[in-house]
Amino acid sequence: MANESETEISSLGEFGLISELTRDFKSVNKSTELGVGDDCAVLNYSGDSGKRTLVTTDLLLEGIHFDLTYTPLKHLGYKAAVVNFSDVYAMGGVPRQITVSLGISRRFTVEHINELYAGILLACEHYGVDLVGGDTSASVTGLLISVTCIGEADEGSIVRRSGARDTDLVYVSGDLGAAYMGLQLLEREREAGAGQADFQPDFAGREYLLERQLKPEARRDVIAELKKLGIHPTAMMDVSDGLSSELLHICHDSNVGCRVYEERIPIDYQTAVMAEELNMNLVTAAMNGGEDYELLFTVPLSEHQKAEQLTTARLIGHITKPELGSCLVSRDGNELEIRAQGWNAFKPQQQ
Amino acid sequence: MANESETEISSLGEFGLISELTRDFKSVNKSTELGVGDDCAVLNYSGDSGKRTLVTTDLLLEGIHFDLTYTPLKHLGYKAAVVNFSDVYAMGGVPRQITVSLGISRRFTVEHINELYAGILLACEHYGVDLVGGDTSASVTGLLISVTCIGEADEGSIVRRSGARDTDLVYVSGDLGAAYMGLQLLEREREAGAGQADFQPDFAGREYLLERQLKPEARRDVIAELKKLGIHPTAMMDVSDGLSSELLHICHDSNVGCRVYEERIPIDYQTAVMAEELNMNLVTAAMNGGEDYELLFTVPLSEHQKAEQLTTARLIGHITKPELGSCLVSRDGNELEIRAQGWNAFKPQQQ
Repeated sequence: MANESETEISSLGEFGLISELTRDFKSVNKSTELGVGDDCAVLNYSGDSGKRTLVTTDLLLEGIHFDLTYTPLKHLGYKAAVVNFSDVYAMGGVPRQITVSLGISRRFTVEHINELYAGILLACEHYGVDLVGGDTSASVTGLLISVTCIGEADEGSIVRRSGARDTDLVYVSGDLGAAYMGLQLLEREREAGAGQADFQPDFAGREYLLERQLKPEARRDVIAELKKLGIHPTAMMDVSDGLSSELLHICHDSNVGCRVYEERIPIDYQTAVMAEELNMNLVTAAMNGGEDYELLFTVPLSEHQKAEQLTTARLIGHITKPELGSCLVSRDGNELEIRAQGWNAFKPQQQ
Repeated sequence: MANESETEISSLGEFGLISELTRDFKSVNKSTELGVGDDCAVLNYSGDSGKRTLVTTDLLLEGIHFDLTYTPLKHLGYKAAVVNFSDVYAMGGVPRQITVSLGISRRFTVEHINELYAGILLACEHYGVDLVGGDTSASVTGLLISVTCIGEADEGSIVRRSGARDTDLVYVSGDLGAAYMGLQLLEREREAGAGQADFQPDFAGREYLLERQLKPEARRDVIAELKKLGIHPTAMMDVSDGLSSELLHICHDSNVGCRVYEERIPIDYQTAVMAEELNMNLVTAAMNGGEDYELLFTVPLSEHQKAEQLTTARLIGHITKPELGSCLVSRDGNELEIRAQGWNAFKPQQQ
């Protein structure tokens, strides 16, 4: 517990902590073109060839990010790799290499770790990525996975969070909230089955929710379609912490506001049914659930005609001047200020 | 505990586990020049410019790799960064960027993490490295630090573990065993002070051992001297798991044997005094203690005259044909087979 003169980390949250820690830091190498604060760092190791190297890293901890009572190790490995690939695509790049570090407590056997690795290697194969290194250690409690991904991009195809401009159109790929609902479903069945050895969870008709939670994919097809249509987004990021949180990142970093329309938020039928069954607000789940790994991006108004042809993403709103703030426009026309209610790993959780 | 059909990880150890996991993996990207199995992966993102990108990663876990009862957080941050820089120098490269991921349990405050970061940033400043990203999360228990370092090297200056040849000379920088003796000293004083609030540990005259354990440096001065003298080592790696373990890596990867002479193993006076005080075998400590972060390298016999001028490293033996095995030649002329007794994090520890 913190003394009076000390600051609890939960009071800052993850983004506040990172900004506090890196505030005074200045880069000294000319190969560092972009440091902390986007989906990836951008490095220039190519001289004048116009290629850039992207670097991103994600940490997954047992008991915080995953629960092995309902997460198969192979799926976990696949997801640990894919969430990093997603960050590289979200910068307009292509993932090429990963390193994987594992901390492994004594309850895991070689066979367990082989399962985990089978998932990592499957993701690598599927996305054309090479596993090039890592570190492996015993851990005191539980499993931890730290993945770093290296990608490449042409200088001109890199999309940062900071390029959105007033009147740009806001798009999001796929649909939102399903991974969150998948997690709610898994938690409910875990609780229902607690202590019963022969318990059979009931997932019929909810396969999509489970897939979104347990085996997400990175949207390289969206990047391919943007390229095919000749659309260059002005800002882009992947939706990992929830649409609200990501919209606020883009608006903050681009110094703009936005209007996003409730009726345009893409939501799958199974997500809606599950929200009703759990008596949860569907739009809140879609805006704040997180772990969607969809791509959120902005397109200049002048490219509207090209963007209308997108089959993988949907127009959900537009960028405004910063003084208009960031709002969700409800079906009845009310403007609700968007607040980041994305998941804060440092917030004390109710058990 | 493992069933009969399952395999305990401790039975393979870290290197066995990695080799089991990555056995069937083939790289698909032409930018991947060297994957798992050396101090760094070697990537080519430079086209034909002859530059290479190096990647290495290390995981440090509380309760496994460090004990915060005697490790100041600032020192820990410094060390977490430096051990990665050491891997880049050990390939003949220069570290340029790092990412730092942290898992932080609830007993840590913002002030604690600021201390840790102050150490990381001090190391970055000292070695000219940029902090470009990371991930930060709550953890269920303790602190974990996952660092990935990106470096660069000219294609021609990269040194792998696999290039040692029969008759090459074996050199090691600095001295060995001091970090291990520092750890023994810290552990002894921790036990002596257990439960005593006003206990003052006695470290007088042992400052060097503490420094080697708590605040190691990466030997970029050795790399600079090699360059100045025009010496290009045939094989090189840093001594993190102990000289025995690293010699066996070079001999295995280069398909050679070696003779290393006990009387030539560099050992500091404080290390020798401490070993005697603790009634430990000094040579065993120097050969197997680990965490020295010195550079072990081989030089062709033809460069002997240049290598004689080295002030940062010392000749300790020579490379032989593989059928002669890897041996330590004792002071009385006996040949003792070198076995890796380096630290195995997966081995059940006596508490």
